[in-house]
This record gives sequence, C-alpha cells and structure tokens, in this order.
Amino acid sequence: MISNHHIILPEPSLRRLPWYLAYIEILKAQGVEFVSSTQISRALNVDASQIAKDLSFLSLKGKTRIGYEVEALYDTLSEFLGFRTSHKAFVFGAGSLGAALMQDSGLSRYGLEIVAGFDVDPKKIGSTVAGVRIHHIDMLSEVMESSPASIGILTVPVEYAQETADIAIGEGIKALWNFTPYRVKVAEGVVMANTSIYAHLALIFNRLNAES
Amino acid sequence: MISNHHIILPEPSLRRLPWYLAYIEILKAQGVEFVSSTQISRALNVDASQIAKDLSFLSLKGKTRIGYEVEALYDTLSEFLGFRTSHKAFVFGAGSLGAALMQDSGLSRYGLEIVAGFDVDPKKIGSTVAGVRIHHIDMLSEVMESSPASIGILTVPVEYAQETADIAIGEGIKALWNFTPYRVKVAEGVVMANTSIYAHLALIFNRLNAES
Repeated sequence: MISNHHIILPEPSLRRLPWYLAYIEILKAQGVEFVSSTQISRALNVDASQIAKDLSFLSLKGKTRIGYEVEALYDTLSEFLGFRTSHKAFVFGAGSLGAALMQDSGLSRYGLEIVAGFDVDPKKIGSTVAGVRIHHIDMLSEVMESSPASIGILTVPVEYAQETADIAIGEGIKALWNFTPYRVKVAEGVVMANTSIYAHLALIFNRLNAES
Repeated sequence: MISNHHIILPEPSLRRLPWYLAYIEILKAQGVEFVSSTQISRALNVDASQIAKDLSFLSLKGKTRIGYEVEALYDTLSEFLGFRTSHKAFVFGAGSLGAALMQDSGLSRYGLEIVAGFDVDPKKIGSTVAGVRIHHIDMLSEVMESSPASIGILTVPVEYAQETADIAIGEGIKALWNFTPYRVKVAEGVVMANTSIYAHLALIFNRLNAES
C-alpha cells in the first residue's frame, strides 16, 4: 500500500482527492467494480485529464476501456490521505465550536483523534466533553509529555488566536487547524490550515442578497 | 450604513473582509481609534494596496496619515458582511456534525440562525438539539411554509448529498452550505459554499508526514 510520507502533492490536487474518495465511496457501496476518469469527471465536474494526473501522483493508472478498480482506488486514496491513521490533536478553546468539534465523531473516522482540550475558564477546567478532558492551558507542557499530540485545533476567541498559537507551537505542536477568522502567523515549517467558516458565511449572505 | 444588497464583491475580496474584521475587532477591544492599511497589512500579511482596494468596494476610504476610523470600519464591515442580520437556515442531516453545528452558538452571533433540522432516522425525528427541532425530511414542505429558511446546511452522509440538495432546492432553499466531501451540483442561481473539512484534514496529514 502506498504511503504519503514522501509524496508532497500540490495543494489543488490534494484538495480534489477527497472529492474523488467521496464519489468512489458511493460507487463502492453500490457494488460498482470499475470506474473511468470520464465517469468521475462527469460526476464531479473536474476535467478527466486532471483526474488522471492527480491519481498518477499516487501511481494509480486506469486501464484502457476499463478504468480504475473501485476497491483499490478507495483503499489507496483513503490510505494516502491519511484517513486510516490516527493523528492526535488538542483543541485550544473549549467554547461552543471547540466543544462541537470534540463531539463530532466524524473526525475520528477520518483519522483525527482529539485527545485533550485546553481553556482558561475555571468552570471548564477538569470537565470532559464527549470523553475529552479539558485542562488549563498552563498544563499544556505536562499533558504534551504524558499524552502528546502533533495537531492543534484553534477555536479560541479571535483576540487570543496568535498568542495561543505561539504557546502551542512552543510546546511542540507541528500543525495548526485554525477555525478563528484571525490570520495566525507561524514560523516556516509549521503546517497551517485555515477553515474560514465566517468567510463562507459572508460569501453565502452576500450572494443571497444579490439574488433577492 | 452601507448595505450589501447591491454590491457583488469578487470572491477573494469577500474572503479577506472577515480577516480585516477579526483584526479590527481586536483593535476596537483595545480602544484603538485609527488604523492604517499599512498596519492591517503588517498584522495580516496582505498587501496594503490590496486592503485599500478591498475596502474601497465598501466606499471606505482611509484618511492620509490617520487611516481608517476603527469604530466605523468595524460597523461597516460587520454590516456589509451580513453578520448583523439574521439569516434563517435548516440543517439537513442531524448526525454528529449537524448536531455540532446546531450547538455552536457562535454561528448565530455571525447572523446564521438554525431554525430546524431534518433527518430520516426515526430515533431523531421529534427530538431537539440545542432547542432546534428535528423533523422527518418528508415534512420539509410543511416546515418551509410555517417557518421558512433560505439557507440549507448539508451534513448528510455523502451518498445522500446530491439527493438531499435536490430536495432542499426543490422546496425553496436558495443557498447550500455543503459540509460533505461530495461535489454537489446545483442549478445556476443557487448559491453554493463548500466547507471542505476533510480536504483540510488531508492537507494537514500530508504536510505533517512530509515534515517528519
């Protein structure tokens, strides 16, 4: 089985792979055995040659006239995307969104395991959300030692985003998944992913108003 | 106060405005009165001339040497982005992620009010999550009549994504916020926003492996 340890895909390709996986998952459930890039192309509105190129990064080649084997494609894609390996994460900010993410069991099915939460609110410290214990941020160093994680999920209020990111990285967090609307700055080598919930809301509201 | 009813911003500009708002919110809390585009530029790593251009879409002009008035900038941005108006939404799929979004009170602070949830699981129908009632999807037409919404949040399993989107749009949903990894196809005129949680996870996992 291919591992993604040494293949660095361009971001646009990497973003498309989960779409392919989602579609392949449906075909697999339907018992379909083979799929062509043309079929994927029609289903997802992505150029067929682009699909073939994206999949060739994973050394996947379709057979002429038959296409890709659905089972193999499914296995290789989910393995490559890291969805079959457990990646441990801390949640910084056990507020409404942080707690919601801890409760979302879907994340663990995709390889993200939230092992601890951090906050500064005395009412939250010591409590658990969906089995995840909330610690004071001052305990980060200790928790990191006893139960390390490499991913930090940032759900603190916007004014604490940069400071919390700095603390987390200082204690050994290697990747930040930023849910705040603040553009957190990190040193080179630290992995950053921004999930811009509020930007998407703004986009929806703006376009909706344009229609009405 | 400016309204966003007739200004259609390019998507990249629209995506940057919430970053500016987040930063301005911090300055406002600190009691800062004026901010220049150079300052915003340094804080957010966005070109100063780009910031000035983005803000000019909103008829906001900074004064030479003084910059923008923080309070006015804050008010205009949050109003323009639609965060001060209540937009009603239905959640389709009251599973783990759907329930998490219903519990996230942060969304309502940004203008998104979830008024009903829909599912097909008999165990969920009739229950409430964070005060939001879950109905059978067959009740959509009725609920739409008594308590209409224009936004549909899609958190169903991937194999039901397209079908659910079609039903929702058929009953009058004007904008879809798609949290599934499936590339839902909609007719022109329907607003689509994809929040690719799994693509972000894949990105983090892939880049993390590259570092180690």
